[in-house]
Amino acid sequence: MDGAAMMIKKNEEDIRKMVKVAIFGYGTVGSGVFEVLRRNSAVIQNKIEDEIQVKYVLDLREFDEDPVRDVLVHDINIILDDPEVAIVCETMGGEHPAYDFTRQALERGKSVCTSNKAVVEKFGPELLQIAKAHNCSYLFEASVGGGIPIIRPLRTSLAQEEVQSITGILNGTTNYILTKMENEGLAFDDVLKRAQEKGYAEKNPDADILGHDAGRKIAILTSLAYGKNVDFSDITTEGITAITDQDFAYAKRLGATIKLFARSMKKKDKYYAIVAPFLVYPENPLYAVNGVYNAILVNCNMGGDTMYYGKGAGKLATASAVVADVLDCARHLGKNLAIKWDSEKLEISPIDGAVRKFFVRAAGADEARIRDVFGDVELIDDVVVGERGFITSEMTEAEYREKAAKLENIIGMIRVD
Amino acid sequence: MDGAAMMIKKNEEDIRKMVKVAIFGYGTVGSGVFEVLRRNSAVIQNKIEDEIQVKYVLDLREFDEDPVRDVLVHDINIILDDPEVAIVCETMGGEHPAYDFTRQALERGKSVCTSNKAVVEKFGPELLQIAKAHNCSYLFEASVGGGIPIIRPLRTSLAQEEVQSITGILNGTTNYILTKMENEGLAFDDVLKRAQEKGYAEKNPDADILGHDAGRKIAILTSLAYGKNVDFSDITTEGITAITDQDFAYAKRLGATIKLFARSMKKKDKYYAIVAPFLVYPENPLYAVNGVYNAILVNCNMGGDTMYYGKGAGKLATASAVVADVLDCARHLGKNLAIKWDSEKLEISPIDGAVRKFFVRAAGADEARIRDVFGDVELIDDVVVGERGFITSEMTEAEYREKAAKLENIIGMIRVD
Repeated sequence: MDGAAMMIKKNEEDIRKMVKVAIFGYGTVGSGVFEVLRRNSAVIQNKIEDEIQVKYVLDLREFDEDPVRDVLVHDINIILDDPEVAIVCETMGGEHPAYDFTRQALERGKSVCTSNKAVVEKFGPELLQIAKAHNCSYLFEASVGGGIPIIRPLRTSLAQEEVQSITGILNGTTNYILTKMENEGLAFDDVLKRAQEKGYAEKNPDADILGHDAGRKIAILTSLAYGKNVDFSDITTEGITAITDQDFAYAKRLGATIKLFARSMKKKDKYYAIVAPFLVYPENPLYAVNGVYNAILVNCNMGGDTMYYGKGAGKLATASAVVADVLDCARHLGKNLAIKWDSEKLEISPIDGAVRKFFVRAAGADEARIRDVFGDVELIDDVVVGERGFITSEMTEAEYREKAAKLENIIGMIRVD
Repeated sequence: MDGAAMMIKKNEEDIRKMVKVAIFGYGTVGSGVFEVLRRNSAVIQNKIEDEIQVKYVLDLREFDEDPVRDVLVHDINIILDDPEVAIVCETMGGEHPAYDFTRQALERGKSVCTSNKAVVEKFGPELLQIAKAHNCSYLFEASVGGGIPIIRPLRTSLAQEEVQSITGILNGTTNYILTKMENEGLAFDDVLKRAQEKGYAEKNPDADILGHDAGRKIAILTSLAYGKNVDFSDITTEGITAITDQDFAYAKRLGATIKLFARSMKKKDKYYAIVAPFLVYPENPLYAVNGVYNAILVNCNMGGDTMYYGKGAGKLATASAVVADVLDCARHLGKNLAIKWDSEKLEISPIDGAVRKFFVRAAGADEARIRDVFGDVELIDDVVVGERGFITSEMTEAEYREKAAKLENIIGMIRVD
């Protein structure tokens, strides 16, 4: 390097900002954020021309053997009172005190980047408002789809679009279970047990297998797509606990598979949202999303379908998404990154009006009786002894329920994508 | 709306910026940009709180029957001299005068958003430098992958990542041809002819079928991933003209398919890049990307694989990506959106050192002779009479070439993903 080049180099270093960050919570994601910032510091400096430095990590525990010990603090006020800290990563999980700490940080003008789906879903509009009032940002890429960029693309790359529908495979645990059931012909309970042993499912797996986790995530995405607040409790939510290996036998016969979809759509100024298992054909790009992978298919009125795929969970993938938000904040210090998500309620229409086909299994029902009740159907013969499967023509959920009440011995129903 | 609400509403309107835009070229993409901005103006205002207005469209032609006639101009200086125009969409195509007009606009401090792959690939670093010097931006989301958000995710969502590899299906024409050959068992020439009749392939299809289009796109993505300039001519480029229906018969037997991949990777501080047909198995999420759809799979050192999928071409999809860039510029008026892409050359290593398996077909070769030359191979029997197919073990491209020179009567080779 010659003298002139060295001087330029020196000047560049002089104007390089040093951005100080704090991490709330040194659990799985928090320690992942620490690791990503440490291992990729050279890459990050090269890309954004600023240096990111973790000044504090807040946790009640001690970590004597971990490099984090040099920056570990137990009192949040040390962080809140330090004007050097510009950005906070909230990776504590749970509603409280995560919400309270987030609020306090934002009120001091510190941007907050989080992976905490529960806080985002419940307090998103309020926290965004506080961030705006204090010229800082509240970002939450990691709260939906783990390491998949979906929140930022919705806010930026698709800002010019009218979103017509969002369909996500948003829960890795259930997708892992369904994939295993399909590939190995196993029963739900057996796969769940194995998933728990491998750490892919929680000891209490209800939030996953009943569809609540996916429901909170589609509530967040839908709120962002339309700028108003979707109440999770307005979303019809069915889990995968009723899915059997026999259902997969039917799916196989049809050349299809079964996926837990979290879906919302806008149709003639009405909004619908549902979490439920769907029969999915290979034409849908979500058909091939297997195991713990997640994906989100977004249909827009101009650009059509785009899909975003990746790891829906995991320490480093989730942490990486948090760090992406940190860099976005670092590039916009002292500015609010506007996210349109008002507290005004987005009215979700009753599912009764949603139109689709239904895959139905009925014990011992004969063809004439099925056609008598459901009219024109596609019969699926000889899959399970003693029963008949069929796919209805398109009808509303209300019409389906009305007809289903008339047919004796329905064993199960799965909606058709 | 009561009085107070009306006053608030009024105030909001007062502070709303009106951002004036010009479009260079009213061809397919340019008229698409005009259409997206017109049809989605309410959506855009709601999302970014600014109003985008097309003040001028530059084209040498007249469009008497089109709403564009009210803003049509034939002289670029009217646009360059108008300080109100903050953003220009360059949708002319071709290198000149598109490059010259872009340069002039940037030098006047007007941000430029383009779909023009040729200009981006050839002049990217220089134009980015000019934009930076004039506090405006040069954005080109639409130049790769049409309507798929990939440039912006690389710049923002993956800024914290070390990219280890990028694998793209980046050319819709070739993917359409390969999908048709597979699904209908047709020969290359027949499908190409039909694609030309339907407008999916150009009259002179060389840029597509020889892999040059995909090569220019992977050059852009690789430059952005590593911040230095990849010269397209350094990329080994093979098209799909040698692929036959017999190759697909082998692929089917193997449970695989054949895709034209544009791929770059970093391995032990060396960089490799290639465009070539690959044998692809269902485990790869790109396996299911069919027809005119494109997708890009990015492997990173922290978050692992993420994939981006959508329409790789088409009027409204491409225009939508240009408009996304316009909104990004509107949110950052007077500021440079920094994109790291230096003019310094990124050294691409000779393909000789790249390691992989190879699928080979040889006429009349017997097993002993194949094993004599290639060692341990996976033989594929009885697909085509009078020949043998086999898959080699892993070896470098140089090793493969050396061995292949020794085996008589090789009919064809396809790399294995």
